Amino acid sequence: MCETNVYIRTGDDQEELFLEQVDIIEPSEAGLRLVDIFGKQRFINARIKDMNLLNHRIVLEKLQTIAAKKCINGSKV
Amino acid sequence: MCETNVYIRTGDDQEELFLEQVDIIEPSEAGLRLVDIFGKQRFINARIKDMNLLNHRIVLEKLQTIAAKKCINGSKV
Repeated sequence: MCETNVYIRTGDDQEELFLEQVDIIEPSEAGLRLVDIFGKQRFINARIKDMNLLNHRIVLEKLQTIAAKKCINGSKV
Repeated sequence: MCETNVYIRTGDDQEELFLEQVDIIEPSEAGLRLVDIFGKQRFINARIKDMNLLNHRIVLEKLQTIAAKKCINGSKV
């Protein structure tokens, strides 16, 4: 089976498991929508940091409000 | 094997194959960096539109210059 475990980066070298055996990932209004092979879905305001499919491993990075972060006074934060 | 084919959405119901047997996808300065199981890499200014891992299928959507869109009148980023 080609489902993948999804982790969240919580620190420089730290990750925690967010959802196992994920089948579907797609953008949603709340950030990302993840669905596992049993149909359980979870939402998270995050972006994909990296993805290694042969290792069954996707790492997410939580987002603040992106627009605010990128455009405070027109300069990048 | 759990590699996946990556497609680009080119129209409402149209997609074209961008890279087969992809192992790694990660954000890069140029958008996304994709590496297939043979180590061949390609870059594309796109975001992930949806991902269906059991079907070995990832669909990308090409991006314009995001920064310009998000920070009009602000200095980029």
